[in-house]
Order: sequence, then C-alpha cells, then structure tokens
Amino acid sequence: MTAGFHRIAVLGLGLIGGSLVQAVRQAGIDVVGYDTDPATAAAASASGFPVAPTDAAAVHGADLVVLAMPLPEVARALQSLAPNLGSNTIVTDVGTLKRPVLEAVRTHAPHAVFVGGHPLAGVEDTGWGAADPLLFRDSPWALIVEPETSIEAWLKLAGLVCDLGAKPVPTTAADQDAAVARVIGLPHVLAGALAVTGLAGGPLGLSLAAGSYMSGSRVARTRPELVTTWCDDNPALVAALDDAIAHLTSARTALAAGSSVYPLAAEGHDARINWEHRRFEPVELSASTAELVAHGETGGWVTAVLRDDDGVRLLGMRPVG
Amino acid sequence: MTAGFHRIAVLGLGLIGGSLVQAVRQAGIDVVGYDTDPATAAAASASGFPVAPTDAAAVHGADLVVLAMPLPEVARALQSLAPNLGSNTIVTDVGTLKRPVLEAVRTHAPHAVFVGGHPLAGVEDTGWGAADPLLFRDSPWALIVEPETSIEAWLKLAGLVCDLGAKPVPTTAADQDAAVARVIGLPHVLAGALAVTGLAGGPLGLSLAAGSYMSGSRVARTRPELVTTWCDDNPALVAALDDAIAHLTSARTALAAGSSVYPLAAEGHDARINWEHRRFEPVELSASTAELVAHGETGGWVTAVLRDDDGVRLLGMRPVG
Repeated sequence: MTAGFHRIAVLGLGLIGGSLVQAVRQAGIDVVGYDTDPATAAAASASGFPVAPTDAAAVHGADLVVLAMPLPEVARALQSLAPNLGSNTIVTDVGTLKRPVLEAVRTHAPHAVFVGGHPLAGVEDTGWGAADPLLFRDSPWALIVEPETSIEAWLKLAGLVCDLGAKPVPTTAADQDAAVARVIGLPHVLAGALAVTGLAGGPLGLSLAAGSYMSGSRVARTRPELVTTWCDDNPALVAALDDAIAHLTSARTALAAGSSVYPLAAEGHDARINWEHRRFEPVELSASTAELVAHGETGGWVTAVLRDDDGVRLLGMRPVG
Repeated sequence: MTAGFHRIAVLGLGLIGGSLVQAVRQAGIDVVGYDTDPATAAAASASGFPVAPTDAAAVHGADLVVLAMPLPEVARALQSLAPNLGSNTIVTDVGTLKRPVLEAVRTHAPHAVFVGGHPLAGVEDTGWGAADPLLFRDSPWALIVEPETSIEAWLKLAGLVCDLGAKPVPTTAADQDAAVARVIGLPHVLAGALAVTGLAGGPLGLSLAAGSYMSGSRVARTRPELVTTWCDDNPALVAALDDAIAHLTSARTALAAGSSVYPLAAEGHDARINWEHRRFEPVELSASTAELVAHGETGGWVTAVLRDDDGVRLLGMRPVG
C-alpha cells in the first residue's frame, strides 16, 4: 500500500518540468502545470495537459508542488507561493545546485515542508518541445536530507521518484553541490573550452573533426544561460577546475619536454573503466537522516519505499567492495 | 572509367586495418591482409579474409600497400618492405599524425610512391573484433600533399577513398597535424582529465554522473597506448593545450571572484552551433598541389575523381561564405 501523492503541481514546463508533468500523469497521478511564458503554457495545454492560469491556482489543493522554473526565478516564486501552501503540502525543486534553493526556502518560505531534488536527466535540448515522459528512467535523482528535513516527506518523495523509474540518491545540499561540480559543472566548462579551442584551428580542423570532438563538445550545445545556473556560485567547481587544470598542465609540460601524455591517458582510462564496471548489491536501510546521508555518500541509492502495517521498509542498492 | 586498384595489401588488422580490408572487399577489389599478431591474423582468416603469412607475401603483386600497424611499428615495417615494393606500387598509411610517418618514409623508403592518409573514423573500441566495413562512410580522410607527392598517385588514392564512402581532405602533413591537435589530441587529453577529476569527487559523484560526464569522458575508454601515438611528438598539441588551459583558467578566475562562466559557455555554444550549421557547395578543382592544399585549408574535400578521354575531372565541396 503506497501512501502516494494525489495531486501534483509542476511550476515551470521546460524540459524537466514538462517531462515531469508527462511522467507523473503516466504514473496515474493527477497533475497540473503552470508556466510564466504564455507560449509554453499554450503548448502544454495544446498537448492535452491541464495548465493553471496562475501559480496560486496550480498550487491549490496540491499535496506536492514542484519548483521547475530556472534557478533565478525560484526565490520570487517562493515568495509568491508561501502564503498559498497547505500545511501538509510538500515542496520540492529540480535544480542542479541545491544550496542556493535551500537558502531561498529558508529566507522566503521557512515554514514550507521542503525536500530539495535534482533529477540528473538533462539533455542538451531544452523546452517543452523536448519533454519526454521517459526522461527519468534509470537516472539518478538527488534528494536532499538536511537536519530540518522531514523524513516522512523525504520518504514520500523518494517513493514517487522510484515510481517514475528513477533512482533517489540521498545526500546533503553541500555534498551534492560538491559532487555535481565534478560531474556536471566541469564537463560543461571543458566542453566549452574544447569547442572554442577546436574552432581556433580554422576550417581544416573543423572538417577533420570527428567522433572525439563531437562527443567532447556535445554539451556545449546547451544554452549558456542554463550552464551558468549549473556552474556559478558553486565554490566546489573552482576546486574541480583547479584539479583539471593541474592535470592538463602536467600533460602539457610532459609534451613540451618531449615526454608523453601516457600517465594522464592511463589514469583517465582506468577512472572511466572503473566507473563503467562498478557493481552494486541490494541493501535494506533504516530511514534515519544519518544512515540516508551515509548511504548516498558511499554511492548508494534507494530502490523502493514499501509501506505495511509495521511501517516503512526502505530498500536500496550500494556499491560492492 | 576508373583507373582503380587491382590488389590491395593491408598490413595491420586492428580497427582501422580490419575495417579497411572489409570495406575494400565490399568495393569489389582484391585484398590481402597481414598482422604480426598470430591471433589477429587467425581471427581475420577465420572470418573469411585472405591473410598472408609474411608482409613480403602480402605486398607481392599489390598496387596499393596500406600501413595500418601502430605508429611505433611503421619504421620497421618500411625497412622490411622497401626492397619488395614494385616501382608502381603506391604506399599509404592510416595514422593520426602525418609528419612522423613522412619522416620515416624519407629515411627508410625514399623511393616509395607514398601518399600519407588518415581516416578520421575511429571509435574507442579497438582490434579486429571491432572492425566494420561501414566505418569510413561519410568520414573525413586526410590525404597528404607534399612537394614530392605524385599527384597521379594522390588522385588514384582519393578515388579509392571516395569509393569507400569517405571524404578525402587534401592537406600537408604539418597542417593536418596542427589541425588534429585541436580536434583529436585535445579532446582525448580533456577526456582523461575529466575522467580523473570526476572520480576524485568520490562515489557519490560517480552515482550522480550522467550524460555530460558520460559523453565528456567517452574517449577516455580508448587504450592509453593508442592515445599517446595520437598526442606525443605533436608540438601543435602544446599550443592547443595552452589555449584550452587559458580558457579554463579564465573561467576559474571569474568563478572564484563571484562572477560567471557565461562568457566561455556562450563562446563555446556559438563555436559548437556554428560547426553544426556549416554549409557547403560543390566546386570543380584543378589537380595541382597548390590548389589541393588551398582547398583543404578552407575546409573543403573531394567528392569524385572522374576519368575520361580528356583526363581527370576533380569534384569537391567547399564551405559557403
């Protein structure tokens, strides 16, 4: 018996919000969308999804409100929504960085039952037109656990994420922002540097560019306004860039001295192959803040939130060894 | 009427050589392979392709010899082959860097009719088992024009490359090595740095890693021994790394000062989108060294080598604007 949500409001109908509206309806849950952009709202409505005329109307009666607008609009949305939130309404978001949102909630909606979230499911295309109800399948989805987080709300949201086919990863806002600096921010900055440096070689190079340039620069296709919201104000990205620059400088120095890029190529190869070959095993978890955070820290996630007369059983996967 | 090749010997049956053997046979040309590794030779033979017991036997009677062994083995192969080459036999290779091979030919086989080649068609998998007769379809294929290059041999090889569905790009060894520094060497070094730096974030980050880490580190899957043959001894890669490091350092400085990665993200986005949106127009070329080199320099390639009673007509594509 699942204690799920009955009505979900999704505010912001871009790639993530739009995909979420479609995925939630596929899961059989009542959903309503809203977008400040009339063209986006009209497109969603024309596709047969209910779209509310105001954010207050969307939120009315919802037991889950998803903030899916771009990060710069989150604070204003929270101010507008705070008075309209029911006392049992859970609020979540889908942004890449979790600390700025957590701070905005503490400032603008301190009484909200808030659980930050981050589905790691983007593609470089954006907007309602790119939305896909299967976008979240098998994707990690960071769900934030802070000292003030309601574990009951966290479990309810984790259950929904599992129902959408994704993998809830429990973590703190600070840990998740440090982690995404290295696996989201850094790849986007490197892709930008590769795209620019490749182009500087002139048209011959662009005609010779093939697979490695194509995949290395792929995420430079992302709108730069979005990249900034994933990168700026994340001190961990400075450290990640320092590390990457140190590796590149070391390879550059070796090359210039007539030596080899082999050490970096070999270390990078091992890192990538080890990542691909990680193995996992099932585990049963207890639903405590400390255990959830530790589970995420070791690379684990949640696979099911089961409820019976004895309470909640929480199942997950964790890396072997 | 095509003045094509009648018998092609491919020495080295890894990904490129193996794919070439299969593509050449698909094109209806007699082909024989050779590999110093008995297991590779046996695998090719078991797949139904003729494999010679020695390189001398493979080369006997061939009007085209393809050096498809790893770069470190090319010099020794040339020494061994030089006495066995017919005076009309054309020799080519498939390596990433063209200057080292050109120097090896000048040293070890100065009388060979040599035209350096580089199909830009690798994938990160290697070996005969990954060979694919369609590997070269629509791929650029650098064909080297130097002052000593026989234009007749160049045209004959360009015709074969067109027959395999690829796009011959005329260029000098120095120009091609400078270009591939930015579009092959650099993406591989960046992928290595990303793979290592991402891993350094610990298991949480590896569980959150998704599309951008996956595509950014994809070519770190390549065997590091191969990466070194594409990167080492290419001075242009030092300059390319300097450029990339300067862009990354600039983004890092902006971030640390509370500013934005926006300038790099925007410039990278424009570079990538402009690359995708390049348009081309057909052109008829004259078969002179100077015009061929200039055509490649502006981003052009050859689409057909046509022969009739009046001689050769050379068709190509070049960027518009």
